[in-house]
Amino acid sequence: MIPPRTPPGILELLPAEQATFRRMLDTVRTTYERFGFVEIETPVFERTEVLLTKTGGETERQIYFVQSTGSMDSDAAPDLALRFDLTVPLARYVAEHQNDLAFPFKRYQIQRVYRGERPQRGRFREFYQCDIDVIGRESLNLRHDAEVPAVIEDVFSRLEVGSFTIRINNRLLMAGLLGQLGIEGDLQAAVLREVDKLDKRDPDEVEAALVGLGLSQGDVVALLGLVGTRVRGADDAIASLGSLEAKDDRARRGVADLRVVFETLAELGVPDHAYALDLGIARGLEYYTGTVYETTLDAHPEIGSVCSGGRYDDLASLYTNTRLPGVGISIGLTRLYWQLREAGLVGAGSTSVAAYVTVMDDESLNSALRLATSLRAAGINTDVASEAGRLGKQLKYADRIGARYAIIAGEDERSRGAVTVKDLLVGDQFESAADELADSLNRRIQSGAS
Amino acid sequence: MIPPRTPPGILELLPAEQATFRRMLDTVRTTYERFGFVEIETPVFERTEVLLTKTGGETERQIYFVQSTGSMDSDAAPDLALRFDLTVPLARYVAEHQNDLAFPFKRYQIQRVYRGERPQRGRFREFYQCDIDVIGRESLNLRHDAEVPAVIEDVFSRLEVGSFTIRINNRLLMAGLLGQLGIEGDLQAAVLREVDKLDKRDPDEVEAALVGLGLSQGDVVALLGLVGTRVRGADDAIASLGSLEAKDDRARRGVADLRVVFETLAELGVPDHAYALDLGIARGLEYYTGTVYETTLDAHPEIGSVCSGGRYDDLASLYTNTRLPGVGISIGLTRLYWQLREAGLVGAGSTSVAAYVTVMDDESLNSALRLATSLRAAGINTDVASEAGRLGKQLKYADRIGARYAIIAGEDERSRGAVTVKDLLVGDQFESAADELADSLNRRIQSGAS
Repeated sequence: MIPPRTPPGILELLPAEQATFRRMLDTVRTTYERFGFVEIETPVFERTEVLLTKTGGETERQIYFVQSTGSMDSDAAPDLALRFDLTVPLARYVAEHQNDLAFPFKRYQIQRVYRGERPQRGRFREFYQCDIDVIGRESLNLRHDAEVPAVIEDVFSRLEVGSFTIRINNRLLMAGLLGQLGIEGDLQAAVLREVDKLDKRDPDEVEAALVGLGLSQGDVVALLGLVGTRVRGADDAIASLGSLEAKDDRARRGVADLRVVFETLAELGVPDHAYALDLGIARGLEYYTGTVYETTLDAHPEIGSVCSGGRYDDLASLYTNTRLPGVGISIGLTRLYWQLREAGLVGAGSTSVAAYVTVMDDESLNSALRLATSLRAAGINTDVASEAGRLGKQLKYADRIGARYAIIAGEDERSRGAVTVKDLLVGDQFESAADELADSLNRRIQSGAS
Repeated sequence: MIPPRTPPGILELLPAEQATFRRMLDTVRTTYERFGFVEIETPVFERTEVLLTKTGGETERQIYFVQSTGSMDSDAAPDLALRFDLTVPLARYVAEHQNDLAFPFKRYQIQRVYRGERPQRGRFREFYQCDIDVIGRESLNLRHDAEVPAVIEDVFSRLEVGSFTIRINNRLLMAGLLGQLGIEGDLQAAVLREVDKLDKRDPDEVEAALVGLGLSQGDVVALLGLVGTRVRGADDAIASLGSLEAKDDRARRGVADLRVVFETLAELGVPDHAYALDLGIARGLEYYTGTVYETTLDAHPEIGSVCSGGRYDDLASLYTNTRLPGVGISIGLTRLYWQLREAGLVGAGSTSVAAYVTVMDDESLNSALRLATSLRAAGINTDVASEAGRLGKQLKYADRIGARYAIIAGEDERSRGAVTVKDLLVGDQFESAADELADSLNRRIQSGAS
């Protein structure tokens, strides 16, 4: 006998958990589509030469290689590997199909990615990423840098995870402001890496590390004041940008770009409380070149960023000479679901089963089937008992499969042309004429779904 | 520069194709849910020991092994491999989580599977399977054998692929009827393998092969008459079963079981024209033990079976001592999509983008954003130009991204508080008051969606 075990590092869900997770996936998908993004899917594996072109480092050491049986005995390196993100596959896709795409190309992609992480709590080897990117050819209008956080605001509002803040910064602005303090090059990168730790570490430790990098006490104070800037809403963010003494060209460009982003966010009707100018965001030093985003849940700072991204100069320079600037963002939905579950914010709710038709005696087996067929025809997800059994046992089964309503048509009900409906979530019950059951259930489902 | 190439054997879709494929996936999913099946997802890879337990043969030779970077240099066999179907992962899942599941366990699963096929037209190394199975613990009511084709009838009706036939047979019935002709054991298996080729080969060749197996000319005639039985609809199928001279116990049991299946199909309201008793269906000799199904498109017999499955005695005997009888069916949706596309039955239709708001001058950039926001708030998937440009170019872009309606609010329209709506699919256009646009678009979308 072989022990039936899920591979390590996998979050495998029971049906009621999967139903909750599927609702989250659907929310993300429909919101992405609401903003005019179109879907692509790419294969789970790419050619190794396509995947192994990044700068190396952590991600490449975590890659999973794929080999068919036939090539196992060969000494050649495996020519396929599992994708570790959706950005490299996007770059390959756009470079390969550029003549068949319309630019700006607004794509969304919701698929699983793979990383050979050391197994530990909350780290998964397979997890969903939900990405949007807007890719321009040769150029990309800055207003898309506001579109991306507008989508994210809508996604997280619909996910109902409480209040959140989309923190927005600009890499050029930071480069310029640090430059004005005489901090450039490798030192600048090192300083920004320390700044990035401010959310997770004791400020005193970060301060000591900055001094250790050679900064004067005065520069450290100036720097920590600067990166502490966090201003909510468009008007205040724009005012705060105006008060920065931006002399360096990069800083000036960063201020101008961020101004457009915040103005456009206001025009798009994104509520002020959902986003902030935050000069403490430093992410993705190697990759992002303009606007950058991180999103945190206000009541759960310990979770860290649940959605990050930014603007990049060129998506696919490794695969094509066409310059493809873009802006995008990614939600790691498996990890988010797990974190929300750990925090008690999502539970295993009802499944997709709306109604379960019970059967108490053999004579009513066929009328139960016909009742189920009529409910299905009315658009109600319906299961039905395949054999007669005790009511208590069938109600327990209905509850265990996550059905919302149990339909009971015993001898007594049948004599009156009626059925009893038990709401397994709320706990109440009501009687309905058998031929009005579909309508009355649909009314309850519609009013309850909001 | 690295050439951006999709790995061989992959069907990668452009956005408009993906939109069509997504509609097919959604149709399958919502229909599966309509019948009370709940979703599970399993990881793309399983432990090698879990996957490599089948009888071997073709599928195991096509397996993809997975190795993380760290384990590449080790001599040990890879401990992970990509799933080649959804049945083995289901068996592992049910065996592992059996104490947390309610039986009968009605699950659906829509995920990609992997086979290292030799690349050839219409054969894919990664493809979607859309499976339903009903798993009992210790026993499973026969009425579920009718539920499965009822779901399939609904799926294919909704997919709008023209008329189709779900061909139903029973392995016990065939074993018994062949036994009555004195054909048993290995010979029976060999005979059934020949019978299975009747759809694809010259009948004379099959006849010759049967004679070559040692059958008398009389037995061959009797056999070919038998397996030529194809009777549509419940009443005629049941009558035909009654006319079979079933003396062998297995044959009698097969007749009795099929009778229940056809009676239940009628009770479920499945239309007679959608299914047939077909004694020529022999599939899955090693695996299926009772009812078996194949589905063919009436106008496209050359495509072969688009949906197959059956009843099995024990799902997970390799992983658990609990007996888990089941019945299930699988749609290979990637292959079906490809075949329908080859046959000209599906095209690249509109994408999920319903409306594209054009912008002809810088002054209207912000009003266009606000218009887009209002359309989105009304549930309409909307994209909007990020910069002003020529109308012709913007209409062409709207068409290329697969938008259905282009919204035009030039100076002339704005002076009247109106917008022009161009239907890019039908080719007509109409004018709407700007503040009634969302309502009038939603009416068009709802009436056109049917």
